[in-house]
Amino acid sequence: MKVSLNQKILSRNEECAQKNKAFFVEHGVLCLNFISSPGSGKTTTIARTIRDLKDKLKIGVIEGDIKTDTDAQKIRAAGADAIQIETRGACHLSAEQVYNAIKALDAETKDVVIIENVGNLVCPSAFDLGENSRVVMLSVPEGDDKPVKYPGTFAGAEVVLINKIDLMEHIEFNLERVLADIRVVNPNAKIFQVSAATGEGLDQWYEWLLKRAGRSDD
Amino acid sequence: MKVSLNQKILSRNEECAQKNKAFFVEHGVLCLNFISSPGSGKTTTIARTIRDLKDKLKIGVIEGDIKTDTDAQKIRAAGADAIQIETRGACHLSAEQVYNAIKALDAETKDVVIIENVGNLVCPSAFDLGENSRVVMLSVPEGDDKPVKYPGTFAGAEVVLINKIDLMEHIEFNLERVLADIRVVNPNAKIFQVSAATGEGLDQWYEWLLKRAGRSDD
Repeated sequence: MKVSLNQKILSRNEECAQKNKAFFVEHGVLCLNFISSPGSGKTTTIARTIRDLKDKLKIGVIEGDIKTDTDAQKIRAAGADAIQIETRGACHLSAEQVYNAIKALDAETKDVVIIENVGNLVCPSAFDLGENSRVVMLSVPEGDDKPVKYPGTFAGAEVVLINKIDLMEHIEFNLERVLADIRVVNPNAKIFQVSAATGEGLDQWYEWLLKRAGRSDD
Repeated sequence: MKVSLNQKILSRNEECAQKNKAFFVEHGVLCLNFISSPGSGKTTTIARTIRDLKDKLKIGVIEGDIKTDTDAQKIRAAGADAIQIETRGACHLSAEQVYNAIKALDAETKDVVIIENVGNLVCPSAFDLGENSRVVMLSVPEGDDKPVKYPGTFAGAEVVLINKIDLMEHIEFNLERVLADIRVVNPNAKIFQVSAATGEGLDQWYEWLLKRAGRSDD
């Protein structure tokens, strides 16, 4: 009973995710779903990406949070349109929430739509939002055991951003272990080591993003 | 339909939580439920507490993780009994899982049972495990906006541990803001600023714990 109802909820989500996916294909928009723990630096990374690529990519952002619209404000301050979804307790965004946000954002006018999911390394990975690609972030202070403890989330990523690498000198963090553990569950993930605070390593992430959005000069 | 089923699941959990609560009362055991994001330092803090208070408190630990038993191993290395629960995808511990773990742990022989919940700042706060008290942890690198973004979790805490304060010199973190924001949703929370890595501030946490467990010299 419990299982079948969960399946029903998932399948309703899946239906809506398919509509979103069709929308992104039709309009040639790349949609990324950012997933991480609270405080990994999703907003900071997205805001910096918007600033650094403002002449090359038109980015719109859908922000998910339990409460507050502070992240949408930060994104707007960086120069992009943003729609805030307050989930009021829910631990992940749903495809239906994204569907409504797409319209409010005029998503068809963007090159890239970034969805910043609720800060949670577990639940968001179970809900397809119709995105083209998942970006999972892990920040150095969270520790080097996260890929083995949350394998399902890392398995679903096209890109893994290891953020706050500038803090590696102050914190014990076995980078080799992290890279190896991600490879076990996800041999094909693109892994970039970055610091959204200092800018270190962001070039490679930008290169990937421009190429994936079909806006690379290559 | 969805709501009533969720209520049913919650009420089944509540029933089991009441059994756990009765057990802790009967045996004079203090049970703490640790809730935080992944990587806030729950395991490190619990392991250090076990080592530092080994002559004063008999602590047993119930570890919750999506996958791996590495945290239980760390706790045993610190000198305490530990039971690992692998939730295999579930984003929080349930009262029933704790009920089974209590027996495996011989919890009636302990002064304190610490439950380390799955690393997740959202879902665990909705599930009563029968604990006497909730300890919510927030680490400095996660950022100073977490109490306003996850108000429900902070509202339910008897204690808030702000961990990794040794990193405050390397990271922008408005401590005054955090303290004020916690006060808004939870005026009575005991808030301790600690570093489980350096030991800074742990004395006050230990003092609270000994007193709460009825093992204080006062």
